[in-house]
Amino acid sequence: MEFTVQQIAHILKGEVKGDNTRKINNLAKIQEAKEGDICFLSNLKYENYLYTTEASAVIINKDFEPKKEYQSTLILVDDAYTAFSVLLEEYAKIINFSKIGIEQPSYIAPTATYGEGAYIGAFAYIGNYVKIGNNVKIYPHVYIGDKVSIGDNTILYAGVKIYADCKIGNQCTIHAGAVIGSDGFGFAPQSDGTYKAIPQVGTVIIEDNVDIGANTTIDRATMGATLIEQGVKLDNLIQVAHNVRIGKNTVIASQVGISGSTTIGENCIIAGQVGIVGHIRIANRTTIGAQSGVSNSIDKEGMTVLGAPAIDHREQLKNYVIARKLPEFKKRIEELEKKIVTLQESK
Amino acid sequence: MEFTVQQIAHILKGEVKGDNTRKINNLAKIQEAKEGDICFLSNLKYENYLYTTEASAVIINKDFEPKKEYQSTLILVDDAYTAFSVLLEEYAKIINFSKIGIEQPSYIAPTATYGEGAYIGAFAYIGNYVKIGNNVKIYPHVYIGDKVSIGDNTILYAGVKIYADCKIGNQCTIHAGAVIGSDGFGFAPQSDGTYKAIPQVGTVIIEDNVDIGANTTIDRATMGATLIEQGVKLDNLIQVAHNVRIGKNTVIASQVGISGSTTIGENCIIAGQVGIVGHIRIANRTTIGAQSGVSNSIDKEGMTVLGAPAIDHREQLKNYVIARKLPEFKKRIEELEKKIVTLQESK
Amino acid sequence: MEFTVQQIAHILKGEVKGDNTRKINNLAKIQEAKEGDICFLSNLKYENYLYTTEASAVIINKDFEPKKEYQSTLILVDDAYTAFSVLLEEYAKIINFSKIGIEQPSYIAPTATYGEGAYIGAFAYIGNYVKIGNNVKIYPHVYIGDKVSIGDNTILYAGVKIYADCKIGNQCTIHAGAVIGSDGFGFAPQSDGTYKAIPQVGTVIIEDNVDIGANTTIDRATMGATLIEQGVKLDNLIQVAHNVRIGKNTVIASQVGISGSTTIGENCIIAGQVGIVGHIRIANRTTIGAQSGVSNSIDKEGMTVLGAPAIDHREQLKNYVIARKLPEFKKRIEELEKKIVTLQESK
Repeated sequence: MEFTVQQIAHILKGEVKGDNTRKINNLAKIQEAKEGDICFLSNLKYENYLYTTEASAVIINKDFEPKKEYQSTLILVDDAYTAFSVLLEEYAKIINFSKIGIEQPSYIAPTATYGEGAYIGAFAYIGNYVKIGNNVKIYPHVYIGDKVSIGDNTILYAGVKIYADCKIGNQCTIHAGAVIGSDGFGFAPQSDGTYKAIPQVGTVIIEDNVDIGANTTIDRATMGATLIEQGVKLDNLIQVAHNVRIGKNTVIASQVGISGSTTIGENCIIAGQVGIVGHIRIANRTTIGAQSGVSNSIDKEGMTVLGAPAIDHREQLKNYVIARKLPEFKKRIEELEKKIVTLQESK
Repeated sequence: MEFTVQQIAHILKGEVKGDNTRKINNLAKIQEAKEGDICFLSNLKYENYLYTTEASAVIINKDFEPKKEYQSTLILVDDAYTAFSVLLEEYAKIINFSKIGIEQPSYIAPTATYGEGAYIGAFAYIGNYVKIGNNVKIYPHVYIGDKVSIGDNTILYAGVKIYADCKIGNQCTIHAGAVIGSDGFGFAPQSDGTYKAIPQVGTVIIEDNVDIGANTTIDRATMGATLIEQGVKLDNLIQVAHNVRIGKNTVIASQVGISGSTTIGENCIIAGQVGIVGHIRIANRTTIGAQSGVSNSIDKEGMTVLGAPAIDHREQLKNYVIARKLPEFKKRIEELEKKIVTLQESK
Repeated sequence: MEFTVQQIAHILKGEVKGDNTRKINNLAKIQEAKEGDICFLSNLKYENYLYTTEASAVIINKDFEPKKEYQSTLILVDDAYTAFSVLLEEYAKIINFSKIGIEQPSYIAPTATYGEGAYIGAFAYIGNYVKIGNNVKIYPHVYIGDKVSIGDNTILYAGVKIYADCKIGNQCTIHAGAVIGSDGFGFAPQSDGTYKAIPQVGTVIIEDNVDIGANTTIDRATMGATLIEQGVKLDNLIQVAHNVRIGKNTVIASQVGISGSTTIGENCIIAGQVGIVGHIRIANRTTIGAQSGVSNSIDKEGMTVLGAPAIDHREQLKNYVIARKLPEFKKRIEELEKKIVTLQESK
């Protein structure tokens, strides 16, 4: 991607001061920017970088008055911070939606359909009766099983695997290597010590505006559907077991594991490496601290819990403080025991 | 997949009461079933759902007498619960084994062989001298390295990667994105602070009836073989390091990590997110609670351990109870100290 | 791969005693070796295996004098242990670098370039303006996004995914399913409870001699670069978040998670399942015990920390000892309380 300073100024409705033909191909922080980069100066704490940066262009508030020489072209705007955010989003849109067309070889079953603006990368596999909306971007090595449906504007990065019958909503982003719809982990013990797989004939439903991280796994339900509601954000390497339900706008960090049939409320925040047992309910707006182990339902909304087993975080923090001083307490108990003996003897 | 009620009744040797031409394309719970679904009623606690469900068919005990009107077609059988289980398994078999034939483009080395009933999806890669048994299902994007052997009736879902020389048994199911045979993590520290890779020239052997979850990784041995014995069930995102051995019929939940050269016994149950150090032995029939850290061998069979470091779960549960009340104990110690001082002074 | 004993003796500059035409196709430990295997005997503790092994060849010190009959061909060398190490490395090199040429179908953008000695497996995808060095091995199903650069002698195993604009150094090994350059996990909360993705327009830089395990994920920076310095060794299923920096020669075991913008020093050792919060610094030569949770910066070099929250491991081990005996301390406090009461009453 390459733009001139003039083209960018046009997007930002800014005024150019300096050479408007300079070429921009990257966004950067002012303290790291090099030739070809564009950056912004808003917080005057960083003003000195303006006089030393090699950035080709700097977005800057129009009321700013430079005190020394500088070599960048300036783009003057009302609010440099906001303008840069706009630019970031435009840039991301261009990156994400510039791919278009069908690369070869790809495999698209004759019964599959897709809308306008599609990108289907080489080696993508689209099974029977798959339905794909408009402006969907399917990167190379994506596998879409039979009868899957995918909404509009969704992006499936390289190597995403979606098993048969699952549903993916609109404006979803699923990162490389994520697996949607693998069999739930259910086995019935037999009398001879072996296990027999319990058929997993349900599906996975991913609603709109859901983001799913790289190599995350979401299992299909035994019956019914594992459900990820709208606006949920999942980081990398998360495990979501069969029949789990995650409420809307819940955010879950990397390496969290959620066991079967658990229901997570809306607008929860779950930090990294948390484990949650099966068949429980977590209330709306619960916050769970990193590495916690949640073994019971949380009924009250808005709590923050921590530890394993997880309890109210303020209680837990007090425990942590003492848990670090256990040898001291041991000593104090021993001291007490001696003194008691002395007192008893002296009686 | 679509069947008539009559076809299903025939499989279940049941008697149809109502319209036997209705179409069934899904299995569901009676409390969630919609048109096109088949469900069952066995526990009379759920009887009321019979009178409200939109299910196209309900499997029901033949001695059951409805008390109100209902709109589903009934299939009368001796035991509704068992009949539904049979149906689930038949359905799963149809799903799993309906794929057949070689899709194009796929890559099959001229020296590779495969048996009858094979499905080889588009973009599957089968290396030199690979040997594949009968009725093996190889989904798209599967990679099978040189000289791998795969038994009969095994299913490799989309994107499974098997490195050269590994052996996979009969009736195994390996889910999408699982990696079998990557290099063990072994590096020799050098005097300049760098590390040199220790060549990993062993393999992985997966015996019969093993299930492996999505994105799970099993490393090849340094020499010899990492061994997963028959009937082992592994969930998603598990790490099995080089030279590990897992005994038959052991079940391991998601995100567990097992370090190098550790031997796990038979019929163990290991809950989610457990970590096990290297070079230890876990006895048969050990149960390990979620998130535990096992740092020493467990010699006695049939134990249940918990915590990090893991100890007998009854002991650990007592510790957990007290660990949650540490501030109270701190207070009681302070109280005692004051009283002692008072007693000493009053002497 | 098959060699004669004579060919191997030639590589090791050893002298053959016995049939030098026997065929070798595997390396093994003497206690496990079978026909076709080569093994070594150095530690005389294992001498008895020499008289029972079916190994086709045994590498042995030239001053060794057998006391019984044996059936293997011997290769006499100065130091059997060293000779076997040399053989292991040669063998690994042959395995790793024997693949050569471009398999079809693969997808190589016309603007992509690659050097001599390349292997590009079937179904590999190489995007626009990608630059690949000499002797690079790209296994099937690898995805390389636009403008990625890859140094010399690097190996990308099956199904590795590298997003656009990332840089991979020389002599790197990346195992199957690893994902490099997925979006960092950054979302801005909106007033209606939803989240808006913060564009992640940075990249990932992997320096020389880095090893990355199977299904590990490394996110691209928000701006700038997530940086993995030279000589870093990462195991399987690790999460490296956006803008993390890992110092050279640091070794990280499986399932570790490192949150955003954290800097790890050089020559650190991080054991399995550790979690590290964002925006902190870990000093050089820090060792972190398994399953630890690191929530604060570690400023002093060379420390060993343990636990969650992680503290000096010697302190923590003392805490662990007492934490396992909390019921005993509870009892002792109760005992003290009773005695105090008795003393107070007897006054």
